[in-house]
Amino acid sequence: MSLLIAGTMAFDAIETPFGKTDKIIGGSATYAAWSASHFTQPIQQISIIGGDFPQEEIDQLSARGVQFDGVEQLQNEKSFFWSGKYHMDMNTRDTLITDLNVLEKFNPQVPASYQDAEYVMLGNLMPKLQMQIIDQLKHRPKLIIMDTMNFWMDIAMDDLKDVLKKVDLLMVNDGEARQLSGEYSLVKAAQKIMSMGPRYLIIKKGEHGALLFHGTQVFFAPALPLEDVFDPTGAGDTFAGGFIGYLAKTKNISFENMKTAIIVGSAMASFVVEKFGTQRLKEISKEEIDMRLNQFVDLVNFEIDIV
Amino acid sequence: MSLLIAGTMAFDAIETPFGKTDKIIGGSATYAAWSASHFTQPIQQISIIGGDFPQEEIDQLSARGVQFDGVEQLQNEKSFFWSGKYHMDMNTRDTLITDLNVLEKFNPQVPASYQDAEYVMLGNLMPKLQMQIIDQLKHRPKLIIMDTMNFWMDIAMDDLKDVLKKVDLLMVNDGEARQLSGEYSLVKAAQKIMSMGPRYLIIKKGEHGALLFHGTQVFFAPALPLEDVFDPTGAGDTFAGGFIGYLAKTKNISFENMKTAIIVGSAMASFVVEKFGTQRLKEISKEEIDMRLNQFVDLVNFEIDIV
Repeated sequence: MSLLIAGTMAFDAIETPFGKTDKIIGGSATYAAWSASHFTQPIQQISIIGGDFPQEEIDQLSARGVQFDGVEQLQNEKSFFWSGKYHMDMNTRDTLITDLNVLEKFNPQVPASYQDAEYVMLGNLMPKLQMQIIDQLKHRPKLIIMDTMNFWMDIAMDDLKDVLKKVDLLMVNDGEARQLSGEYSLVKAAQKIMSMGPRYLIIKKGEHGALLFHGTQVFFAPALPLEDVFDPTGAGDTFAGGFIGYLAKTKNISFENMKTAIIVGSAMASFVVEKFGTQRLKEISKEEIDMRLNQFVDLVNFEIDIV
Repeated sequence: MSLLIAGTMAFDAIETPFGKTDKIIGGSATYAAWSASHFTQPIQQISIIGGDFPQEEIDQLSARGVQFDGVEQLQNEKSFFWSGKYHMDMNTRDTLITDLNVLEKFNPQVPASYQDAEYVMLGNLMPKLQMQIIDQLKHRPKLIIMDTMNFWMDIAMDDLKDVLKKVDLLMVNDGEARQLSGEYSLVKAAQKIMSMGPRYLIIKKGEHGALLFHGTQVFFAPALPLEDVFDPTGAGDTFAGGFIGYLAKTKNISFENMKTAIIVGSAMASFVVEKFGTQRLKEISKEEIDMRLNQFVDLVNFEIDIV
């Protein structure tokens, strides 16, 4: 009963109103794996890295139960590199550099040792690569969730629609939900997107929380109001990793349990933005996570019996 | 044990992506009174209207327990008129016309019959007028809440700060909270604003819900995801009316009860945006309100015991 995570493992250089980093470890699959590793093991990683990817990071992830059989390392090439600068509102950012490097050669293979994966998270990748992974799975997993982005809607919409037919849950932000559906109302957008394939849809609204849709049901998870968002990089992937890590741990994909999983994902995201990169995900203890979950309970819990 | 509401009673002409109205009844005190009247009576209204304000509307409000002793009518003048046009996102609007008319002569008086008011809502008015009302109250009410807007921060900040010292709860939107405090983080903004006087602060985020702050406590109320927001005019005043109407009904101003009151306010706001003007507030039944409150419970309720 394991979790498979596919996505990038990369370097980022980040500038925010609070500071600036040199190259630090990033990538969707890195954030998701660190986040999920607080809840479930093993984690079967699929990615591609260059010779420059630090062995220390691989060792740390391995110690957390992350398996590397599906991570290809091209010794003479460089890892994917992204550099960006956030504005004051932390919801908008400018991409300064995108060096695809090894990503141009990414030809994801699902090792035989991963074929028992029950939970699958396809991080934001070219839709054809997401499909290639699904096509290699010999048994239908209990749950396949995927992330994507507006870029693929612009240049590979047909491929994206093919993948959507194969997954259980799509995770996008509000702008992407509107673009994908052509509907401004998120309620209407959700109905249209679910008719394209996924039975579940999560619409992420950054600091404004996230919505989970399934049939006519809807659940709203707030973001925790924070004094400062230090670095939002990886918040979405950390959210996804916490979400699916919790589902894999509890072995329960009911709508009710997904509600809790979204709160867990939101809690993990609220940690990762407190420092640059994945640092907080490496530091936090089970006690800190439990305390943060209690803060979410206090944040939204109310009594209603008389009106 | 009554509720006093001060604010405008006016005409609006509204254009949205869904349609257009001629002059219809509007004004902050009108929306707030209709909303509050579902929970408490009497409602002691303070406002100013012209000879053109329809007697039918006055009769309808009176039938709902709204008292007009504090509403001055200038027969030979026109009521306040606002006209605006909403953009597709319904969060931004252009003001097309603002005719102050009778509002220029507004000199609010608190009638003797209103002096027992325990709950006071000061709708968005010139801060000096809000202060004039407070100064006339012979007994300190249990709760004074106020609304304001960025315009008064631009031109009457000192007066506004004087009023803030006298009220228990301020209600502003996120942009206004940032302007008033000079802090981008809403958590920091809240701390700073509460140090200016109000012990409670509600930050409204439109379709993204509302936050209630008190000391170090925080509560988040979502907005109900709606298929369409038909006309957002008056949503904030309807929210405020539902909030304070529920507090007046339950006679309980604890933080816990304010949480419920915010959900009630959000439910009322979710109705008013479904049609133009105050129409939905006139139509809805107790059963519809209860059903909507249950939708809010379903929207945010989750179980957490194992992680």
